[in-house]
Amino acid sequence: MIKKGRTLIFENPPKIVGYASAVGKKESKGPLKEFFDIIFMDTTLKQKSFEKAEASLQTAAVNRALKKAELLPSDIDYILGGDLLNQLISSSYGLRSFNIPFLGLYGACSTMAESLGLAALLCESGAAKSAVAVSSSHFCSAERQFRFPLNYGGVRTPTAQWTVTGAGSVVVSQKGEKNLPQIKGVTFGKIEDLGITDINNMGAAMAPAAASTIESFLMDSGTKPSDYDLILTGDLGSLGSSLLVKLLFDNGIDISKQHNDCGLMIYKVKEQDTHCGGSGCGCSASVLCSKILRDLKNKKLNNILFIATGALMSTVSVQQGETIPSIAHLIHITSGEV
Amino acid sequence: MIKKGRTLIFENPPKIVGYASAVGKKESKGPLKEFFDIIFMDTTLKQKSFEKAEASLQTAAVNRALKKAELLPSDIDYILGGDLLNQLISSSYGLRSFNIPFLGLYGACSTMAESLGLAALLCESGAAKSAVAVSSSHFCSAERQFRFPLNYGGVRTPTAQWTVTGAGSVVVSQKGEKNLPQIKGVTFGKIEDLGITDINNMGAAMAPAAASTIESFLMDSGTKPSDYDLILTGDLGSLGSSLLVKLLFDNGIDISKQHNDCGLMIYKVKEQDTHCGGSGCGCSASVLCSKILRDLKNKKLNNILFIATGALMSTVSVQQGETIPSIAHLIHITSGEV
Repeated sequence: MIKKGRTLIFENPPKIVGYASAVGKKESKGPLKEFFDIIFMDTTLKQKSFEKAEASLQTAAVNRALKKAELLPSDIDYILGGDLLNQLISSSYGLRSFNIPFLGLYGACSTMAESLGLAALLCESGAAKSAVAVSSSHFCSAERQFRFPLNYGGVRTPTAQWTVTGAGSVVVSQKGEKNLPQIKGVTFGKIEDLGITDINNMGAAMAPAAASTIESFLMDSGTKPSDYDLILTGDLGSLGSSLLVKLLFDNGIDISKQHNDCGLMIYKVKEQDTHCGGSGCGCSASVLCSKILRDLKNKKLNNILFIATGALMSTVSVQQGETIPSIAHLIHITSGEV
Repeated sequence: MIKKGRTLIFENPPKIVGYASAVGKKESKGPLKEFFDIIFMDTTLKQKSFEKAEASLQTAAVNRALKKAELLPSDIDYILGGDLLNQLISSSYGLRSFNIPFLGLYGACSTMAESLGLAALLCESGAAKSAVAVSSSHFCSAERQFRFPLNYGGVRTPTAQWTVTGAGSVVVSQKGEKNLPQIKGVTFGKIEDLGITDINNMGAAMAPAAASTIESFLMDSGTKPSDYDLILTGDLGSLGSSLLVKLLFDNGIDISKQHNDCGLMIYKVKEQDTHCGGSGCGCSASVLCSKILRDLKNKKLNNILFIATGALMSTVSVQQGETIPSIAHLIHITSGEV
């Protein structure tokens, strides 16, 4: 691989040999319904708690991705995963049965890009023949951990986003058909903190991190926004998305024609009453692992940037008056040879 | 690099060009006092909360490790870190000022080995010239998050361990003097779960993970315990250590002569009333980044295995009746050429 500035460019781009998404009821009523592999209409997935339900989302997404890749868990060298729950319990409980060496990651809602970027790096470097990346979130487990018990019926502020109930998983491999989607490069992000303190306005907190990572990648790769079919951020939502476009525009970079946001794609935002759109690790994970990767596989998309963004605070840090640090990791994905 | 079984063997072993530890008052009264770089006698490090204090431990350890390596933050390609606090706030707040691309990791008390192993892999693969690994824990932030408010004065059970107030940081580099300690290989662990449910007996929960990883490494590398000066586990404590030795002995592997445990080294266990010994991400981090790396640098040790172990539960998973999954990552470190 070649390192240019902050960007790793892969000379033997790892292939995406399998991917799958597993989501809940609300997500199945959004615009991407037809693209999800598995839809659970029961919020608890027949488990005894929301946390166990979220772990089951990861299990289901990984199992389906492996099946689509026609691989067994024993064919996988590493599984890289993370989620929003304290001590990553969705991942450790959801993935323990696979018996695959496990690397736990935390990048808040950027985790899907962090896991996919590292999985690709492990394959490119020869450390792995195949690796799995996975991430999840669950509306109910997130609400009670980060905000209020659901029964409390707290009113949401207009800038709030809706945590997606969903998981996405990607199987990355050194080998695979030439016409499969492939990972061409990765830019891992720095922690940015512009002093936002409103936990209900995370799009605003995360936009500067996305802007910084996108700008670095474009500079390092010597490319411009119009070189891409799609510049897809993780879950900035409507407010954060407009901030991102403005921040980059002020630096002479116009992504307005190419930009979309997973948080704006997954729901009919107004009709489904999700305020600023979707969020959570499972948002970018399930959007990437449904419509986006299918469009890349079908050559409807050919050259995209996937930038998942994360807000790195906790309830404790916010209660202690801290600002919200953020991060964004970028993955450059192409559709493979025609 | 070469992959044998689950083990990565580095052909161009990354060098450890700097390391540092920062600990608290209790740790400074233990047997390793003279080896720590920084000792804070004030439990809050003059910060307004224990969580901010823990973040400052990471900042201090990284700053000192960079200074000893004679490198600036701008010389570092990636910083890999994690801790026990929900959403890794010690790392995200403690490391945000460095302006280095950040990869957040969570492996509970195995995090120091996870971060060091990935940092070494990034260097070996050419993704990084230099990378920093860091991890921390703080007795007071851990107690109130995982157990009881300190003021409550809860009585500890005999099998409990004492969370170390400390951080350790290692600077790994592609280049460096030949006589510096170097990382020869890594075995990343699988999630093991033998059904332990007692949150005050984590040594027992983690011992099978350590046994599995050590056994895999010895098989993959074709070596035996007597080939090593030291087989150092992260923080199994006294109970977990004896279980580990027994588990391996039952499989025909006798590590009793080479084995020691960071949790047993950091305190005068009986005199300092730490029951089964030290624990926490900062335990293995601060022991590795003090006496162990100094002994490797001075050739008092020449060939060691460092196996940090983590218990991957949360208070929520335990309250929901779940067992405690565990993991152990192994790093093979030598003293470099004489």
